[in-house]
Amino acid sequence: MDLNSDLAEGFGRWELTDDEALLGIVTSANVACGYHAGDATVLRRAVDLAAARGVAVGAHVGYRDLPGFGRRFIDVPPAELTDDVVYQMGALAGFARIAGTDIRYVKPHGALYNAIVHHEEQAAAVVAAVRAFDPAMPVLGLPGSRFLALAADAGLPVFQEAFADRAYTPEGTLVSRREPGAVLHDPAAIADRCVRIARGEPIEAADGSSIVVRADSICVHGDSPDAVGIARAVRDRLAAEGVELGSFSARAR
Amino acid sequence: MDLNSDLAEGFGRWELTDDEALLGIVTSANVACGYHAGDATVLRRAVDLAAARGVAVGAHVGYRDLPGFGRRFIDVPPAELTDDVVYQMGALAGFARIAGTDIRYVKPHGALYNAIVHHEEQAAAVVAAVRAFDPAMPVLGLPGSRFLALAADAGLPVFQEAFADRAYTPEGTLVSRREPGAVLHDPAAIADRCVRIARGEPIEAADGSSIVVRADSICVHGDSPDAVGIARAVRDRLAAEGVELGSFSARAR
Amino acid sequence: MDLNSDLAEGFGRWELTDDEALLGIVTSANVACGYHAGDATVLRRAVDLAAARGVAVGAHVGYRDLPGFGRRFIDVPPAELTDDVVYQMGALAGFARIAGTDIRYVKPHGALYNAIVHHEEQAAAVVAAVRAFDPAMPVLGLPGSRFLALAADAGLPVFQEAFADRAYTPEGTLVSRREPGAVLHDPAAIADRCVRIARGEPIEAADGSSIVVRADSICVHGDSPDAVGIARAVRDRLAAEGVELGSFSARAR
Amino acid sequence: MDLNSDLAEGFGRWELTDDEALLGIVTSANVACGYHAGDATVLRRAVDLAAARGVAVGAHVGYRDLPGFGRRFIDVPPAELTDDVVYQMGALAGFARIAGTDIRYVKPHGALYNAIVHHEEQAAAVVAAVRAFDPAMPVLGLPGSRFLALAADAGLPVFQEAFADRAYTPEGTLVSRREPGAVLHDPAAIADRCVRIARGEPIEAADGSSIVVRADSICVHGDSPDAVGIARAVRDRLAAEGVELGSFSARAR
Repeated sequence: MDLNSDLAEGFGRWELTDDEALLGIVTSANVACGYHAGDATVLRRAVDLAAARGVAVGAHVGYRDLPGFGRRFIDVPPAELTDDVVYQMGALAGFARIAGTDIRYVKPHGALYNAIVHHEEQAAAVVAAVRAFDPAMPVLGLPGSRFLALAADAGLPVFQEAFADRAYTPEGTLVSRREPGAVLHDPAAIADRCVRIARGEPIEAADGSSIVVRADSICVHGDSPDAVGIARAVRDRLAAEGVELGSFSARAR
Repeated sequence: MDLNSDLAEGFGRWELTDDEALLGIVTSANVACGYHAGDATVLRRAVDLAAARGVAVGAHVGYRDLPGFGRRFIDVPPAELTDDVVYQMGALAGFARIAGTDIRYVKPHGALYNAIVHHEEQAAAVVAAVRAFDPAMPVLGLPGSRFLALAADAGLPVFQEAFADRAYTPEGTLVSRREPGAVLHDPAAIADRCVRIARGEPIEAADGSSIVVRADSICVHGDSPDAVGIARAVRDRLAAEGVELGSFSARAR
Repeated sequence: MDLNSDLAEGFGRWELTDDEALLGIVTSANVACGYHAGDATVLRRAVDLAAARGVAVGAHVGYRDLPGFGRRFIDVPPAELTDDVVYQMGALAGFARIAGTDIRYVKPHGALYNAIVHHEEQAAAVVAAVRAFDPAMPVLGLPGSRFLALAADAGLPVFQEAFADRAYTPEGTLVSRREPGAVLHDPAAIADRCVRIARGEPIEAADGSSIVVRADSICVHGDSPDAVGIARAVRDRLAAEGVELGSFSARAR
Repeated sequence: MDLNSDLAEGFGRWELTDDEALLGIVTSANVACGYHAGDATVLRRAVDLAAARGVAVGAHVGYRDLPGFGRRFIDVPPAELTDDVVYQMGALAGFARIAGTDIRYVKPHGALYNAIVHHEEQAAAVVAAVRAFDPAMPVLGLPGSRFLALAADAGLPVFQEAFADRAYTPEGTLVSRREPGAVLHDPAAIADRCVRIARGEPIEAADGSSIVVRADSICVHGDSPDAVGIARAVRDRLAAEGVELGSFSARAR
């Protein structure tokens, strides 16, 4: 099983994620590329640390929106969105190159991630960018999304992720953050669920029914001290249960 | 002889350089990388056009300063400046990659270009970035600058440029733009001077004396309709005089 | 009748509108406030010129999106959008103050203008900002828009505009730019239509039928040399026909 | 005596200062205006809180440099710098207006603050902006700076500040941060020093000699949990010693 987390989410004087701690926990690092977060120095440090620890570097591409942290849908024309994704991948690839590694996968961020679950043109635009950059580049996304479907059609290696701390509907989709109980907070419960997902065992959905969530990677959050603690608890539990950890992206090569 | 020009200097709704016209004239294109000008779509179009026409793509790296167009000195700490240059090179390299080409050289822009004539730390920071990115990457700069000296020390292939439309002092430096007569406007006179530089013949300095300006490339400006006309006149005249045109960067490989 | 035009749409090294020419033509100036275009120096110059010529200064408020020139819908949460509009109004008011004038009205720009024709929450957010800033501040917008309806409900003086160079449907709405014939180019035809609108006479809709377009102001475009020529033709024709020109905003005070 | 602190230094998703805690401690709030930190929502919240607590709102104006947090000197041409300062003051004044208050003073931030200790043209540019905005606007700065000298010449009410946690040379200037012992960390020692400054009593300079530091305001830092604790200790100690607290800016009106 793979654990992925968003990092390099600082900017200039501002810090958000504890990249050093996270890179001791996860096996895949979604590195911000400067559009929604991350300046050149933040990127370099994150990539250098990831390379040093053998963590796979992924391009966490988003809308160009620092004030909104990439969390607001922007109706970017598809051709421009393709260019925006190439720009971000290139910028990150430069730091990967000087760290002696490479981009191992692409995962969209925030509002872009959510938009391309359904937004056909923007999903296609992101796929076009990734494919132009490298037709063998793995992508990570939401099961059932248009993004993953179009990526698969385009021949890109496709991987799907589960969320460690989010409640699931009986249909296997995420319970909206606006609903009560949408976000789990108990580290033990979260870790337990991760073990089940890793083993292909059913987990409990929000209505108490059982569902099986298939995932190549589990996303753990890291933008608070608490979150880092939970991520560590997940990692420790998976190790204790004998679940082997490693980046999904290694399987694509 | 090589002709270089700055392009991709638009941003969003704003255009500045007539990239299509310029890419029919020059042999080396200094492509803005998004820090002082150029968004992703502007970069892609410029690089695609350059690749299609066989014009060498250079990274025109600058300070992060869109409002100031990179023309204001910024006291960026050297380590951050190194990261900033890597970021820009990476972003441009992504577009070069999807266009089937590569970055052929680096030329600093505007206030950064001027600063690193003398500013030791910033000059070293730019050299460190280029070297980390590619230890065989050619750089283009001002003869006698600290930048070129440090680049040579670092083993980078070093090339120097002359300015087609600027008056020279008897010592071979540029007459300050604040002096009368600092900028030449007559296309025939400018073209004539370029032929002389290309042949290694002396040109007339501002005081009427003769000097020899050695250059691997001649910079022509392109940010006005007039300038494009002058650039074309220079190119036509060089062709008519039998001066062979081609990018200096080809000699470095 | 009032003529309004968008200006101050440059940024740093980039120019777009010929503010000096436009301010000799229009009676109301929609001045960009730095979010979609316009830096501090661009704003100051535009406001100083407008004040000197007695042209009413309006705040042309938009999404925070320089790369997209405010032409891309952004799903900004309403409370943040209110703050964004206040910020822009304040910044412009500072320049109005030092020029000895004041903001006379608010007109949304680009994608925000279009969004709040229907987007209830964003329309209400803009209205809330204007009202908090000044409960007697006039607003200018599209007839029939939610924005103008909510502004009227909030007690703001409401004014509606027509477009000199756009085709109208028989229902009095604009023909989409994607349709053929949506934009008029003949200066004489455009000027003729403006005279009819100013007099309350019917104009010809896209299907040949007659409609009456009621407007407090006519928007003329100014972001090309052609457009400035058309704007001037409109002004001259209105003057020749004895239509008195003056800012709608004067009627609100 | 007045206590001032920098706040509103967040941006979008990023927080830095605990504005709510600081506004329960200080009597003057240096509110970032969006150029080096602070977006519209951050500004509104800070100004609303300050107004509710009767804390004087000051415009903390800086270079336009979010990535550098305004801490890097930028060689902005003076006329543009004047416009930049007016823009920031206007933006903040809009939020002050809707909160039922007004800007009470101006204090430059970061690299701009440091530059105009000596940089004549930039100092004059800031003074020109403040004076154009309001010829009776108080300014707060470093004793002995060109900024305060030029502001006094221009007729602006001038106030000088001391730093609670910085070591002083025998000449009354600040010991460089690069020197050991330049920054004090002991809350009790810092509070003791503040009482002495407030009473006009001598404090100990870095070499052990005694100096008198005259100040209208004492700057306390608030960008760390520790710093907030120190600020509170200073406030409590001043209160315990019977030093009356209130904004210097009230004396200017």
